Amino acid sequence: MAEKKMWGGRFRQKTAALVEEYTESVSYDRNLYRQDIAGSKAHARMLARQQVISQEDADSIVSGLDAILKEIEDGTFQWKTEYEDVHMNIESRLSELIGDAGKRLHTGRSRNDQVALDFRLYVSDSIREWQELIKGVVAELVKQAEEHVDTLLPGCTHMQPAQPVSLAHHLLAYAWMLTRDFDRLVDCDKRARVCPLGAAALAGTTYPLDPASVAEELGMYGTFKNSMDAVSDRDFVLESLFAGSLVMTHLSRLNEELVYWANPNFGYIYLPDAYATGSSIMPQKKNPDVSEIMRGKVGRTFGALMNLLATVKGLPMTYNRDMQEDKEPFIDTDKTVSTSLAIMAGMLSELRFNTKRMEEVLKQGFLNATELADYLVGKGVPFREAHHITGAAVALAEDKNKGLEDLSIEEFNTVSDLISDDVYEVLSYKNAVARRKTQGGTGPDAVRAQIAELNGWLS
Amino acid sequence: MAEKKMWGGRFRQKTAALVEEYTESVSYDRNLYRQDIAGSKAHARMLARQQVISQEDADSIVSGLDAILKEIEDGTFQWKTEYEDVHMNIESRLSELIGDAGKRLHTGRSRNDQVALDFRLYVSDSIREWQELIKGVVAELVKQAEEHVDTLLPGCTHMQPAQPVSLAHHLLAYAWMLTRDFDRLVDCDKRARVCPLGAAALAGTTYPLDPASVAEELGMYGTFKNSMDAVSDRDFVLESLFAGSLVMTHLSRLNEELVYWANPNFGYIYLPDAYATGSSIMPQKKNPDVSEIMRGKVGRTFGALMNLLATVKGLPMTYNRDMQEDKEPFIDTDKTVSTSLAIMAGMLSELRFNTKRMEEVLKQGFLNATELADYLVGKGVPFREAHHITGAAVALAEDKNKGLEDLSIEEFNTVSDLISDDVYEVLSYKNAVARRKTQGGTGPDAVRAQIAELNGWLS
Amino acid sequence: MAEKKMWGGRFRQKTAALVEEYTESVSYDRNLYRQDIAGSKAHARMLARQQVISQEDADSIVSGLDAILKEIEDGTFQWKTEYEDVHMNIESRLSELIGDAGKRLHTGRSRNDQVALDFRLYVSDSIREWQELIKGVVAELVKQAEEHVDTLLPGCTHMQPAQPVSLAHHLLAYAWMLTRDFDRLVDCDKRARVCPLGAAALAGTTYPLDPASVAEELGMYGTFKNSMDAVSDRDFVLESLFAGSLVMTHLSRLNEELVYWANPNFGYIYLPDAYATGSSIMPQKKNPDVSEIMRGKVGRTFGALMNLLATVKGLPMTYNRDMQEDKEPFIDTDKTVSTSLAIMAGMLSELRFNTKRMEEVLKQGFLNATELADYLVGKGVPFREAHHITGAAVALAEDKNKGLEDLSIEEFNTVSDLISDDVYEVLSYKNAVARRKTQGGTGPDAVRAQIAELNGWLS
Amino acid sequence: MAEKKMWGGRFRQKTAALVEEYTESVSYDRNLYRQDIAGSKAHARMLARQQVISQEDADSIVSGLDAILKEIEDGTFQWKTEYEDVHMNIESRLSELIGDAGKRLHTGRSRNDQVALDFRLYVSDSIREWQELIKGVVAELVKQAEEHVDTLLPGCTHMQPAQPVSLAHHLLAYAWMLTRDFDRLVDCDKRARVCPLGAAALAGTTYPLDPASVAEELGMYGTFKNSMDAVSDRDFVLESLFAGSLVMTHLSRLNEELVYWANPNFGYIYLPDAYATGSSIMPQKKNPDVSEIMRGKVGRTFGALMNLLATVKGLPMTYNRDMQEDKEPFIDTDKTVSTSLAIMAGMLSELRFNTKRMEEVLKQGFLNATELADYLVGKGVPFREAHHITGAAVALAEDKNKGLEDLSIEEFNTVSDLISDDVYEVLSYKNAVARRKTQGGTGPDAVRAQIAELNGWLS
Repeated sequence: MAEKKMWGGRFRQKTAALVEEYTESVSYDRNLYRQDIAGSKAHARMLARQQVISQEDADSIVSGLDAILKEIEDGTFQWKTEYEDVHMNIESRLSELIGDAGKRLHTGRSRNDQVALDFRLYVSDSIREWQELIKGVVAELVKQAEEHVDTLLPGCTHMQPAQPVSLAHHLLAYAWMLTRDFDRLVDCDKRARVCPLGAAALAGTTYPLDPASVAEELGMYGTFKNSMDAVSDRDFVLESLFAGSLVMTHLSRLNEELVYWANPNFGYIYLPDAYATGSSIMPQKKNPDVSEIMRGKVGRTFGALMNLLATVKGLPMTYNRDMQEDKEPFIDTDKTVSTSLAIMAGMLSELRFNTKRMEEVLKQGFLNATELADYLVGKGVPFREAHHITGAAVALAEDKNKGLEDLSIEEFNTVSDLISDDVYEVLSYKNAVARRKTQGGTGPDAVRAQIAELNGWLS
Repeated sequence: MAEKKMWGGRFRQKTAALVEEYTESVSYDRNLYRQDIAGSKAHARMLARQQVISQEDADSIVSGLDAILKEIEDGTFQWKTEYEDVHMNIESRLSELIGDAGKRLHTGRSRNDQVALDFRLYVSDSIREWQELIKGVVAELVKQAEEHVDTLLPGCTHMQPAQPVSLAHHLLAYAWMLTRDFDRLVDCDKRARVCPLGAAALAGTTYPLDPASVAEELGMYGTFKNSMDAVSDRDFVLESLFAGSLVMTHLSRLNEELVYWANPNFGYIYLPDAYATGSSIMPQKKNPDVSEIMRGKVGRTFGALMNLLATVKGLPMTYNRDMQEDKEPFIDTDKTVSTSLAIMAGMLSELRFNTKRMEEVLKQGFLNATELADYLVGKGVPFREAHHITGAAVALAEDKNKGLEDLSIEEFNTVSDLISDDVYEVLSYKNAVARRKTQGGTGPDAVRAQIAELNGWLS
Repeated sequence: MAEKKMWGGRFRQKTAALVEEYTESVSYDRNLYRQDIAGSKAHARMLARQQVISQEDADSIVSGLDAILKEIEDGTFQWKTEYEDVHMNIESRLSELIGDAGKRLHTGRSRNDQVALDFRLYVSDSIREWQELIKGVVAELVKQAEEHVDTLLPGCTHMQPAQPVSLAHHLLAYAWMLTRDFDRLVDCDKRARVCPLGAAALAGTTYPLDPASVAEELGMYGTFKNSMDAVSDRDFVLESLFAGSLVMTHLSRLNEELVYWANPNFGYIYLPDAYATGSSIMPQKKNPDVSEIMRGKVGRTFGALMNLLATVKGLPMTYNRDMQEDKEPFIDTDKTVSTSLAIMAGMLSELRFNTKRMEEVLKQGFLNATELADYLVGKGVPFREAHHITGAAVALAEDKNKGLEDLSIEEFNTVSDLISDDVYEVLSYKNAVARRKTQGGTGPDAVRAQIAELNGWLS
Repeated sequence: MAEKKMWGGRFRQKTAALVEEYTESVSYDRNLYRQDIAGSKAHARMLARQQVISQEDADSIVSGLDAILKEIEDGTFQWKTEYEDVHMNIESRLSELIGDAGKRLHTGRSRNDQVALDFRLYVSDSIREWQELIKGVVAELVKQAEEHVDTLLPGCTHMQPAQPVSLAHHLLAYAWMLTRDFDRLVDCDKRARVCPLGAAALAGTTYPLDPASVAEELGMYGTFKNSMDAVSDRDFVLESLFAGSLVMTHLSRLNEELVYWANPNFGYIYLPDAYATGSSIMPQKKNPDVSEIMRGKVGRTFGALMNLLATVKGLPMTYNRDMQEDKEPFIDTDKTVSTSLAIMAGMLSELRFNTKRMEEVLKQGFLNATELADYLVGKGVPFREAHHITGAAVALAEDKNKGLEDLSIEEFNTVSDLISDDVYEVLSYKNAVARRKTQGGTGPDAVRAQIAELNGWLS
């Protein structure tokens, strides 16, 4: 009774059950079943090659594991919490299926190097999938860019209109960010997909194992260099969590723009129905729910990174059970990153732009003022004076509620005699953009070169 | 086909299904069913009191909701993902059960203020439970302290032995940390348990509602001050996440000590079997798994805090869908904090100390050297010289492989003539501890006063 | 030479110098000089009252410390890195000034409890100043609100216009957030401003000290309960860092709005010149630099919090030198929070609103559509049909490029016969807002009640 | 007066001054002077090559910049806060020195791409220095390893002794971590050291620049792909902050071990005097201050990472002033990482190990129990029974207070008849270690292979 009072209402169960629930991992590490089985098959085959176990045993293990894989994928496998983790669940089933040979699978291996192998493969498989999904988003950005090389909108700094840019150029900025994410994941994979098998508990093994052949069978880049490091290294998880956080940061920036572009004061985009919620009463209104949720999911990837950094920071050599807590943050991040990328690709493919509205806003912002100043400098006006004259012209146009390009020569001449008919070509937004033609600039040729380069990268 | 390639293997489902899964919340916000139902019942009763709906409708709503509560707790309720969240699931079931009256429940209320109410109640209920669980841990610390007022061990700074302290005193340091956590949660609750109902979507309502009476029925401290703030405030979640992170930080520090006390070089504790794993081969060996896992779970509370801070930071007024992501980090933190506290109480209640080993280590550390120096100062030796003599005595004792208290007077006199028989009383570790008798010190009377104060606090 | 190569170019200095620089703290803890001197004066007076030192010594210490305080504030004090920290710098100067009496100041005190006292006072003094600065911002928000009770703008959810609200109401949402910050800081102060003096190194002291009288002299709430906790507790820093992070989060949300309100597509505000940078060429353009920088400084307060959480998490009892790293994050956060609050107050006091533009946007958004639907429901139309009719009316108005309130009765009657002249009163934005008159709503009376309550709170 | 009350005591200065202080960056971005000057020289030379400015102007700019570099390094340069940042300070001085030609330096360049260039070079230069410093630490680890191939200590999992390992092997685990850090920094550099010059404000430039030649002169890997991305990308900072956090995490783990190895219950190391503080009274006592502080500094690198992630997450295209806040976290991390690495190398080079104590602890832990079990298995005893017998032998040895290797054959035979004289060779710790001879294991040959590989890597 005193116990009930002290421990609160939710903990009526016996301590033992509570501790079991607290320490088990099978509820989430079962996600690693494919990697566990692949790793065990490779280990068994190697043990037979090295004559540590018989070929017969190895064959029996491999076919038993294949049967278990099928059971799991069919949904007929019985997961049991009392077997704590994915490894024990599979091992005990293997012994049921094939008897004593199943027990010989663990020869020369320990839970510490086994779990390290499984998780390395899982992380690597996941971040390879992220790479494919990144390509999907880049492909959609490029497709939209192809349509909008000549669509202009105000390019902003400080969220203030600054210079006209091509919508294609704007969208491709995100494509390039994502190619960096891709490269970062490739680099990360080199450090993740390394085989720790043979490190055993921490000191290496007395069996004549051949880790290199296991690594090769599993498509890994090589084997561990030091057994103590091999069982306690979680750098590959941290690096993947960071890379995932950066992917999400990029998506967040894009969603930030989509959310305000959807605000009617901007009105730049039409959100596809599947990615927004509407109002029966205001047909023109749409909430950008998917963009908001995606923005809201970025934090959880930052949290996962901070979580594991704080944990690893304090750990002495070698394996400490704290490390069991590495899996949930990665699994959650994996789901967040991969689903977000897939959904972003879908949303982009259906996104439509209100190019008329963009043009309208462009004109209101006097975004060709810099061109006028450059024009005056070209006519020999000193820089500062050119600025002064331009300011006066903008004020005049604002007064008359029109764009600079709509002023007559007579009106221009009230601020400077030097302005003549050739100014209109200069003031054209299209020409202003086209003049930025060096590599990486917003001019149409430069943008088409980007598109070509990215299409090359995609294929 | 191209699509399949780009979006990767895991996303074979239609976009629509993927988006539904991405945006639904019922898989986790169903945890709030009790608060949702309590809030709706209070709202219905108030609507009747204010004559917005009939008393008959209100009665029908209340009994319908009671029936749903029973269904949920019986496990017979059918949760449906297509109804997205806990609120829609309950509402649609209510309409099934009682017909049109069910639809009138939503009068003068919006999803925005409803979800704010539910979550405020949920957070408040959770942190009130944490308070009870904290008392459970404090009670166990006090119980151990009562047994160990006179058990001495080396008190450390820089993880170096510095002065002898009472084990009770050492354990009570953690009890006091936890009382601060308790107070912090009480403060936090004042800001969490405030009623937002009546804020409607964001602007308040045109119905003559009486939010104060709803607040009173739900045991809340008061009502919202500003409707726009009411629907977009998530400070109470952040504050609770922080308070939970600090609880876990304190448990982490204690587990850090338990882990190294369990190392045989320390050997200060016997870990209870239920909280450790042993070795069939080395019966004396026990891994402190539960302490390690608890340490490993601290990071996830930090991560949850960082997650939500990063999300809220960028949000303009008022409700934004990003905020939906506030629930999972809190639910996870709630589970972590409450389970960890319950398990720590259980572990402490079964923990046994190797007091003989503590005493042995105490002696090896010359932790009475300061006492000898003070003794010499008392005899008129200048401070610096007293230190010098003491250093010589320690070196002598170390040479002879004994403690200072085991040196003979003759031996002492080789370093100073001023040392005589009365030194032994001074060198007694017990006396050294007893001399720290001012409030909050490690002397037995001061420690007993702490125990009395904490027992008062607990009851 | 090999050494030079290995250690890189920046480390030409001797190791000793590098280590000294790495471990010193005087470069930042000198900020605590006022608290260090106040604490030492109180300690000296208490020692005399308890007859541990003579009254003469105490007087000499107090006047010596007053002289040092004057030197520091005059800028004539010589800070020396070789004295490592603020305490040693002041102590050694005290001995220079008053001789041996200076050395007796440290009686019954250790560096561990001294630094804890100093830092508690410093944190408490800082967060009390934050409270004053918060009042400054609230006062400016209230002043603006007083001017803008009747100014209407579109209230947003999902960054989509949803319902008309009073600008005063919108601004006051931030005022209420800040009052919660104030309360949180008051709560935090109760736990920060507690006296640890007398805890000595970790075990308490053998001198007959009277910590309560020191606490009283320093305006503290009480004294430590447990000496080991007293020297190793840094909860008060963490709690202050969290409270500061939340203040900054609130300012960040406001700045987020200011930044997009300054975008010409919104055009809701005129940024005061002192808080923006302009363009010589486009006179109408202003970059909201101060808001952006303030938003950019939020992250450093999150970082400071995460920094110290990660550090404290792993620390066993009692003082560990890692804790020295607690000061810089707090000093940085203090500067960020206090400067940001002061600047926000200044910026708000000069901010001007383009109320005409807000009204214009209001009309474009059909934000009175809900009112029309309610009007129809009032005339007996079923809810769903009312929505359908309203949707048709909105579509009609959009077609004709006018607001709902600009449709003629004839036009209205093409969608429903039930609409007659009384609809115009209903459609008035002003009336729509006024109808939200319950407590906390956006109606003018409810807003004025908020203003009155906040003015009461401020005085 | 009201103002004073509201804004608090610290803000007596005029708002203008406060804002200037809030927005300036020269107090920290002056650290980038070397990169700013190098970038400007390369830009000027390119402008001349492209015939945008005259060769004469370019020569004059280059020699002016060289003169300024000298002034800065001599300490005679006058930094002025009113010039806000490093760029303006240098530019205005350049105009003073060389007149109008100085103004032409900014042709085809904007502050946005200039600051991006400077910071990319600064980050790259810093992380290249980290790479050198990492080599310094690896070199010291290898040197210690060379001395201690045959020194044995208990290898731990769960901080419990598990198997004997070579001290060299243990130390080399850290060396391998650091080689991964090195590789990660190399990868990071590829993305950091890319030239953004030519992106201008955001849209590219109308001048016929040649960014590739600037990139080549500055030793960069290539040029930007998209001008909008170029001016708003801060991924390279985030990636470097992450890589630095991981370096510090590794050092933290090592320091964690040094701190407890220095505890007398372990007693494995003698801390060098320069890296510890002693006690006049207890000559054998040493506080591991440097290790503690280094551990305490890890948090600030995590904080810096979290800081910038939270900031970048919310930023739309392109440059936003929030980004100014990217420099302080990196500068602080750079100082932390580089100083910590340098000091760790120094500390390791002077560290001495108490190998006798390690051996003593090894024996107490029955770390050869696994060997005995394997021995019995080798004699045909089933696995489970072998474990049971071994447990009995350990219990017997513990009773008799000796190691397994000290039991007589008669004693052994009380638990099993199968144990004979050949058991002693098996039980030898040295042999146990030697048997782990596969690649990456703890056996002396495997360890020597690691040393050889690392020596190769270092040169």
